[in-house]
Amino acid sequence: MKSRAAVAWNAGAPLTVETVDVAGPRGGEVLVEIMATGICHTDAYTLSGLDAEGKFPAILGHEGAGIVREIGAGVTSVKVGDHVIPLYTPECRECKTCLSQRSNLCTSIRSTQGQGTMPDGTSRFSLNGESIFHYMGCSTFSNFTVLPEIAVAKVRQDAPFDKICYIGCGVTTGIGAVIYTAKVWPGANVAVFGLGGIGLNVLQGARMVGANKIIGVDINPAKVEIARKFGMTDFVNPRDVGNDKVVSAIQDLTGGGADFTFDCTGNTTVMRQALEASHRGWGTSVVIGVAPSGAEISTRPFQLVTGRTWKGTAFGGARGRTDVPQIVDWYMGGKINIDDLITHSMPLENINTAFDLMQEGKSIRSVVTY
Amino acid sequence: MKSRAAVAWNAGAPLTVETVDVAGPRGGEVLVEIMATGICHTDAYTLSGLDAEGKFPAILGHEGAGIVREIGAGVTSVKVGDHVIPLYTPECRECKTCLSQRSNLCTSIRSTQGQGTMPDGTSRFSLNGESIFHYMGCSTFSNFTVLPEIAVAKVRQDAPFDKICYIGCGVTTGIGAVIYTAKVWPGANVAVFGLGGIGLNVLQGARMVGANKIIGVDINPAKVEIARKFGMTDFVNPRDVGNDKVVSAIQDLTGGGADFTFDCTGNTTVMRQALEASHRGWGTSVVIGVAPSGAEISTRPFQLVTGRTWKGTAFGGARGRTDVPQIVDWYMGGKINIDDLITHSMPLENINTAFDLMQEGKSIRSVVTY
Repeated sequence: MKSRAAVAWNAGAPLTVETVDVAGPRGGEVLVEIMATGICHTDAYTLSGLDAEGKFPAILGHEGAGIVREIGAGVTSVKVGDHVIPLYTPECRECKTCLSQRSNLCTSIRSTQGQGTMPDGTSRFSLNGESIFHYMGCSTFSNFTVLPEIAVAKVRQDAPFDKICYIGCGVTTGIGAVIYTAKVWPGANVAVFGLGGIGLNVLQGARMVGANKIIGVDINPAKVEIARKFGMTDFVNPRDVGNDKVVSAIQDLTGGGADFTFDCTGNTTVMRQALEASHRGWGTSVVIGVAPSGAEISTRPFQLVTGRTWKGTAFGGARGRTDVPQIVDWYMGGKINIDDLITHSMPLENINTAFDLMQEGKSIRSVVTY
Repeated sequence: MKSRAAVAWNAGAPLTVETVDVAGPRGGEVLVEIMATGICHTDAYTLSGLDAEGKFPAILGHEGAGIVREIGAGVTSVKVGDHVIPLYTPECRECKTCLSQRSNLCTSIRSTQGQGTMPDGTSRFSLNGESIFHYMGCSTFSNFTVLPEIAVAKVRQDAPFDKICYIGCGVTTGIGAVIYTAKVWPGANVAVFGLGGIGLNVLQGARMVGANKIIGVDINPAKVEIARKFGMTDFVNPRDVGNDKVVSAIQDLTGGGADFTFDCTGNTTVMRQALEASHRGWGTSVVIGVAPSGAEISTRPFQLVTGRTWKGTAFGGARGRTDVPQIVDWYMGGKINIDDLITHSMPLENINTAFDLMQEGKSIRSVVTY
């Protein structure tokens, strides 16, 4: 079939909207009509050429929501007409990692996903007979895309696509980091470094589970207003207190350090501050941000020996098919706010504008609706 | 009263055995007759002068066992005649940390302990009218010593002092790291870096809780025999496989990485190997070894984002008064082996020999009996 899609031809080049050919789903696969997709920093990272694993030409996009239009042989978990969110972190429930019940990082299709193909090693996308790579197993910048059955989360039908698409990445990453990875408890003190889209979702995750102090840390005071709306109780600006005083500022606010800290910056210096701002004895610091290739985190081992824990999270530790539908319910039930995070909406033809807005820091999240 | 004690007069100088004056216990304190004490690397570290917080003259030693001979006003938790193990990590059950129930790092007397005094800021030790510092709140190199009530663990009376003294530090640090800090589960794969006294106790802790593969890593093949006796199932010698292949050797032995890894070396390069040898998705690495002052650990944050957890432990995460008596029971019940770790026993007069044996790698643990 034919589908409108934004194609990334080369690192650094703008996307162009094309009418591509989409082959039907093979065994275990489903064809999904994408109704809306967010544009995420990870798409921009790959498009920039900095992502060593980026492949071109490709159809980017990994934060979508849509409707199952066709199912391949043997598909049992979803049917035509189901509303779904594509999962760049699938959940096969059969691999060593899924069966461990200790991690969401399903490995069943990891290698082919990284190579830009479906699990059988081929692509469903082509233009004029030339194959185009998939991206993160999702390729939501195409109106129609094909996904393995294990890589779609079935969600309720009354949820608006142009909002819940954000649950496909940013919302789940932030809220999941709080709930699934850190397991923040009611009454805990929390510090969030970096108040972009992920940081705001961490804030509201912490509020949702009943955290006490929820401290935001950012060099941009313009973030304060929206951050307070998402649960921030206290603000620390490193440019005001001095970068070397950020840790002690958080210790002062919390009587010794935050129970949980989150890095949402990707800056390895900030990651260290976040660890050291967590409480002696039991503090946990979670790395969410993606650091530049080759960058390393460091600290004195004394920080760990005196009881701090350093961990990280991908897709918020959420199991895609199990937890994502739950997060959609939280949104529909008013427990979390997505609407105020979606600052821009546009048709596919304007997708390059979404990248520009993001790079210029003018959007929290832009969404393309088909 | 008078007590024989080995006094450390200066960094680097041998200890000399003296007859010191010991003042009786004040309110909340107890006088303990030390019956046996181990000699630990931490004593040697302070004696060497490398410990920036070391104070002289002092009575070192922190790994003892003895009998309560006198109690100060208000002491209720122990009585004269009780057998006790001194605790350099006390358990007040009243400070923020104790009440958090999330950490063993009681802070109630931390500052004075670091200053070499009792909680009231004074010393109970003197010689010819000149005050001598306490050490780690224990000073077990004195036949009689004074401790706060909250810094002694009451243990059963049939346990031999010259064995259970080792529970005052090394045994609890190693076994506790497995049980209290890492919470190793039955069937887990474990890798232990460094097969000295701590490493051997980690091995037997892992065996006790039913670990599956228990991999020892050491550059000295002479450690293999005793390590197997303490539970090691597989051995990796970095000098055989190549230092850059240690991680992959462990991944090969475990099908992807150990569920738990422990650094018992104090070498920050090894700490990184230990983290990276833990399993993607859920592996936990625990730092036990004490690194040189100023040394830092590093890794790519990707290691954390893909599901590894980095933590540390002090005194094995054990609560002194609660858990130490339990470990004594495990020893008396044959669940753990201490006898084979105590390679040398000597009178106080020969204590400098114990330091020499340790530095030359000729002992696992030397014990002084009074």
